Amino acid sequence: MPKRLFPTCFILILWISVCCLIQPVFAQQANGTYVDPMIGSQGLGHIFVGPSLPFGMVKPGPDCGDGGSNSGYKPDMAEPVIGFSQVHISGTGGGPKYGNIQLMPFSGNEDVIDQRSPRDQETAKLNYYSVLLKKYQIKAELTTTSKVAFHRYTYQSNVSKAIKVDPGFFLGEKPIPDYREAQQFVGSEIEITSDTSVSGYTRIRGGWNNGAAYTVFFYAVFDHSIKSLTTWKGRKLFPGTVKQADSGEKTGALLFFGDRGSETVQVKIGISYISSLKAEQNVAAEIPGWSFDKVLNDGRVKWEKEFKKLEIDPAATIEQKIMFYTALYHTMLMPVDRTGENPLWTTDQPYYDDFYAIWDTFRTSSPLLTLLSPSRQTEIVNALLNIYQHDGYLPDARSGNFNGRTQGGSNAEVVIADAYVKGLKGINYEQALSAMLKDATVPPGGNEEKEGRGGLTDYNNLGYVSLNNVRAGNRTVDYAYDDYCIAELARGLNKDAEYKQYLKQADNWQNLWRGDYKHHGAVGFIMPKDASGHFLDSMVYADANAKVSYFNYTPLTNEYPKYRCWWCCFFYEGSSWEYSLSIPHDIPEVIQRSGGTRAFINRLDTLFANGYYNVANEPSFLTPCLYHWAGRPDLSGERVRQIVSHNYNSSAAGIPGNDDSGAMSSWLAFHMMGFYPNAGQDYYLLHAPLLKQSILHQDNGTDFKISTINFSDKNRFVKSVTLNKKPLKRAWITHEDIIKGGELVFEMDAKPSDWGTNELPPAKLKL
Amino acid sequence: MPKRLFPTCFILILWISVCCLIQPVFAQQANGTYVDPMIGSQGLGHIFVGPSLPFGMVKPGPDCGDGGSNSGYKPDMAEPVIGFSQVHISGTGGGPKYGNIQLMPFSGNEDVIDQRSPRDQETAKLNYYSVLLKKYQIKAELTTTSKVAFHRYTYQSNVSKAIKVDPGFFLGEKPIPDYREAQQFVGSEIEITSDTSVSGYTRIRGGWNNGAAYTVFFYAVFDHSIKSLTTWKGRKLFPGTVKQADSGEKTGALLFFGDRGSETVQVKIGISYISSLKAEQNVAAEIPGWSFDKVLNDGRVKWEKEFKKLEIDPAATIEQKIMFYTALYHTMLMPVDRTGENPLWTTDQPYYDDFYAIWDTFRTSSPLLTLLSPSRQTEIVNALLNIYQHDGYLPDARSGNFNGRTQGGSNAEVVIADAYVKGLKGINYEQALSAMLKDATVPPGGNEEKEGRGGLTDYNNLGYVSLNNVRAGNRTVDYAYDDYCIAELARGLNKDAEYKQYLKQADNWQNLWRGDYKHHGAVGFIMPKDASGHFLDSMVYADANAKVSYFNYTPLTNEYPKYRCWWCCFFYEGSSWEYSLSIPHDIPEVIQRSGGTRAFINRLDTLFANGYYNVANEPSFLTPCLYHWAGRPDLSGERVRQIVSHNYNSSAAGIPGNDDSGAMSSWLAFHMMGFYPNAGQDYYLLHAPLLKQSILHQDNGTDFKISTINFSDKNRFVKSVTLNKKPLKRAWITHEDIIKGGELVFEMDAKPSDWGTNELPPAKLKL
Repeated sequence: MPKRLFPTCFILILWISVCCLIQPVFAQQANGTYVDPMIGSQGLGHIFVGPSLPFGMVKPGPDCGDGGSNSGYKPDMAEPVIGFSQVHISGTGGGPKYGNIQLMPFSGNEDVIDQRSPRDQETAKLNYYSVLLKKYQIKAELTTTSKVAFHRYTYQSNVSKAIKVDPGFFLGEKPIPDYREAQQFVGSEIEITSDTSVSGYTRIRGGWNNGAAYTVFFYAVFDHSIKSLTTWKGRKLFPGTVKQADSGEKTGALLFFGDRGSETVQVKIGISYISSLKAEQNVAAEIPGWSFDKVLNDGRVKWEKEFKKLEIDPAATIEQKIMFYTALYHTMLMPVDRTGENPLWTTDQPYYDDFYAIWDTFRTSSPLLTLLSPSRQTEIVNALLNIYQHDGYLPDARSGNFNGRTQGGSNAEVVIADAYVKGLKGINYEQALSAMLKDATVPPGGNEEKEGRGGLTDYNNLGYVSLNNVRAGNRTVDYAYDDYCIAELARGLNKDAEYKQYLKQADNWQNLWRGDYKHHGAVGFIMPKDASGHFLDSMVYADANAKVSYFNYTPLTNEYPKYRCWWCCFFYEGSSWEYSLSIPHDIPEVIQRSGGTRAFINRLDTLFANGYYNVANEPSFLTPCLYHWAGRPDLSGERVRQIVSHNYNSSAAGIPGNDDSGAMSSWLAFHMMGFYPNAGQDYYLLHAPLLKQSILHQDNGTDFKISTINFSDKNRFVKSVTLNKKPLKRAWITHEDIIKGGELVFEMDAKPSDWGTNELPPAKLKL
Repeated sequence: MPKRLFPTCFILILWISVCCLIQPVFAQQANGTYVDPMIGSQGLGHIFVGPSLPFGMVKPGPDCGDGGSNSGYKPDMAEPVIGFSQVHISGTGGGPKYGNIQLMPFSGNEDVIDQRSPRDQETAKLNYYSVLLKKYQIKAELTTTSKVAFHRYTYQSNVSKAIKVDPGFFLGEKPIPDYREAQQFVGSEIEITSDTSVSGYTRIRGGWNNGAAYTVFFYAVFDHSIKSLTTWKGRKLFPGTVKQADSGEKTGALLFFGDRGSETVQVKIGISYISSLKAEQNVAAEIPGWSFDKVLNDGRVKWEKEFKKLEIDPAATIEQKIMFYTALYHTMLMPVDRTGENPLWTTDQPYYDDFYAIWDTFRTSSPLLTLLSPSRQTEIVNALLNIYQHDGYLPDARSGNFNGRTQGGSNAEVVIADAYVKGLKGINYEQALSAMLKDATVPPGGNEEKEGRGGLTDYNNLGYVSLNNVRAGNRTVDYAYDDYCIAELARGLNKDAEYKQYLKQADNWQNLWRGDYKHHGAVGFIMPKDASGHFLDSMVYADANAKVSYFNYTPLTNEYPKYRCWWCCFFYEGSSWEYSLSIPHDIPEVIQRSGGTRAFINRLDTLFANGYYNVANEPSFLTPCLYHWAGRPDLSGERVRQIVSHNYNSSAAGIPGNDDSGAMSSWLAFHMMGFYPNAGQDYYLLHAPLLKQSILHQDNGTDFKISTINFSDKNRFVKSVTLNKKPLKRAWITHEDIIKGGELVFEMDAKPSDWGTNELPPAKLKL
């Protein structure tokens, strides 16, 4: 049993009691006290466990073991700490990115570059992380502002206090040159600029998105004088040498602070993507003093401002509160706000990086942010448009100041359409439409996985992406929905021709629909087709020794045999059972093609009963709620309840898949409150809430309250609903219903009712 | 009359006399004494006039007037000097690039950011430039190593000696944001790091190639102590402040060195694309001491090593020597060797930047370098392949570490084929073929003018680029020749299928050949065709107010009417009269389609007689020698002689068009010696030389000597030729003839002979 599975809530209770005494801001059990950064750090969650501000640029945290994990952290306590680097991402899969400018406190006078220590007494709280480095008996504590990390290292008495500063380190290094998805070293530099300060940079390329070189500059200042030092270049040590210029080799420094006086050495380390001087300025601007506790508390105040906007039932269980506020927390870790830190161009627009990836986050993270902080979401959309303006394409993923890569669709379309239909102001929607049309009309060229729409020539000529391209299936499905989003915006901007064209293209998924294909009782599947229009039952996977091998493709295939890269599948990270239902703009058509309502319900039941549904991945995010379109919101509610209880909890393994910078977490937050967005469209599906009450305090000054009557474990079904005291027969509301404020009341019951059975959720726009 | 048109040779004679006394390396009238950096600085030449080493990274020089010229320099002496920046390019057209890290000496204690001074007593010599700044009576002298510029400023006695260091400056700034081809400011930084040193950087994007941001770091060290200083940010002055961090505003410093002591202040300013510390290391590595004369002389020694390889008739006129060695000099200014200075990736391959553009230089610069320094040319080809490997495409132009843009073809194909057919070793030709095939098969995507082949989908589907694309004409013509180059390499590597395919595609120019089109007595022209296969006589140029306007397209059209961008023409910088003859791999076919030999000669005569030939641009480079394929090398020789005498001379206006980093100059150098390459193919055309004798001392140890019998002004025609004492009836030799060493003797006469009339130069490869 993994170590962090013991009851987190118990520790939290203890911690809340303690914190309330010493942290004034938490005096009234601030919502932030329920955040447990360890949730999702075990299993597939890949959650970053160190401190961060909302959308904070700097994320200092432990790097463990071989430095090969996505978040730096490894949950197995047998894995030693090898240092604390300043930049991380949260919840990602694929090859790691970042892990830059590593610090490692140690004890002793030895000039040894590689330091590592077993760990103990690990504590992660909102904007705080601490661990005991057992080898040296050093307590390391971390907190942060937006651009500056604050480290406090407490040593044993009268031992030599030393710190390694390592700009040569990065996550995911591989011994094979140019290994796919691995980060590659380009250069590093270090200079001890005074007896209390060090600056330099690291320059790295590659990683999951195969990005161009990015440079992370730093300026570190210590509250003790450096008594002696050794720098290195490559593996060669240079005692006393204060500069190591960049010659394409790894550099770093071992700093020694003596063995007398205070047992604590504090470090403020500013980060910048512009220069070391800018990093120094960031330190001066964000942490002028030396109070660790002030930095910690100021950060918590910032978080609390966000958490206060969503107040859930004070009587909710602590487990629920932990799950809910940690979910909000995860949603606000990324993308990161790098306004003023863009080395590529100047602009008066905000700049955000680490969209990782929009394919993951468009469904739930963006809609949740739109409710929590519409001004933030406006900034993010404007940052996307600014990237389009300067780099030529909207990103689907972007990291290290580099667009790339794509997993399927050009899903920024959905984010923009979502902003538009929900009335976000301050966005140049004419420019946005141009950006979306570029995706839809201009093939991205040499590197078809970087940006735009790979396989677009096929898609625009044939109406689907043929098997001449990788990921042909989900590209077709994604593009069709992206096209629907273009149609919505074109309609709003009175571009009639574009509206008609893209509304028509939104049906392109139908060109891969194999209507006569039956599988496990279901009929009709999206299946592979070649360029001449033939559906294929088997596909080539290797031709070696003049012999061609084939494998059968079925609606359950979701990995290819060896010899074929796994991202070359017909569907990215999914099967046809999942993707054939992933048509968020036209479920009624899917129902009709599946044989009607009854057959569709059976199809969903088969999906869930047989484990064909994948809780851990985004293409299935909407699927539990598809029962709504069959007039059965009760079944949606039951599925959601089941999925949450089987897959989510407050333990370190409490997230069932890669959190994908908050995607899985925001899915949870919506469902706990009892409503769920269909991103890119202006409505929310309603179902039996898991929380008795939730109140959204909106930036426009209005409150939207969701409350319940007769809420109990037994009363799992919705009997009736009122919106602002008027009966609501349908199981959905619009965005406008929320933003104008009001109260949604669910009357609960022990059995299903006829609520939501007649007026079904919206279908596709019609000409 | 422009000022610099007075006889340069007269000054040179004086200078040689003086130099010989003080510069030991020049004791025997080294060839470098004939270099006049001012040639091409007036008119269209756009030559950089400051000091540079061969392929040197740093090119310090004067920036004049409004800072809007391509080389920084302006020939009109009424234009003041506004400073001396460290990075320039030579001979380019379009929007400027670089002009980074400007120094400006001045006198006085005023804190004024904008300094400018009228100039006088300008002197430009090999690796040396000096000018008197009249306003301050300061003599500014510049010399350089590869990565470090050396400035010597001599002030009046007992005046305040001051220097402005301006990392905010750059060439080609425009008041309109994101103006096409203009450089755009991103950021800058400055720090006075000691009382004798300053470091920082400038970060700029855009310019002619619409490049991403590049950063030029610097480290400047002075031989005097800074007594006081003022830095600035934006337009605000900060007396005494030693650091200005980058906040996206222009920064700089005014440094004051007092009014006592020496009248001379010297500055060594190292440049790096990696970091300021690396720039500092470059200073330490390249100029450890303070001797301006040593730096000047060491640089000249480096140049002389190159110039010594080509010795021309010692009795040639000084005018000829100046023209010839200055031509060699121009050919070795760019691309620049930035090995060890690539901020994008590490590699054990050389790194070159500022290919500006290969479209310009492939015809003559590359072939000349291949003769002069095959190891250098091998390095350059390997740098191109390394760029392909990391950035995905071979560049056509590359500058500021950014591929882009293209003018027509993917002409790196020609450079690679030229290296292959001429037997350059140490190049991975299998990789090279992959790179070339990528150009030929993978459309470059969103930005079709950046790299690869814009309009490729048309080209590969239709066999030509249709008018749906800009530059459809020369893209088709260029791609056809690029395909021929692919075929050559594929043949050599025994890739039979590729050889056949690309040999066939090499005929694609014929798909735009309008055989029945007659114009000024000539028949058959490459003309615009739409996607459905119809030739067009008129083209749309604007549709305003619901009214569509057309203009006639004729074989003489080379600019579009207003409302159409000039780079959107059917032919880039040229007319059909020029481009219809620009088929370097299949002149016999052009002759046949023109109506046979007699008609073809008439066509050429018409071209030259009517001024349809454009001496100032590369597509016509081979045209004067096309008479060879009609069996009339005498006419080629006459045309060349005529073109040289009418368009080239040793004056500042002595180059008829943009020198394009040596393209026009290397054209001249070949023709002066009496032979001319058809780049991408392994032979050289021979014609009456303009020099009595030339000897190529080759790196392989052999000499190839071209000499003449009965050479005189009157004897302008070749009577007969011997190669290694054997009669040579044909008017061409192979590359192998040269590299194995030997002697080519032209017997001259006052009238044409039958030499070269029978065995014509090579035609296209045949299957």
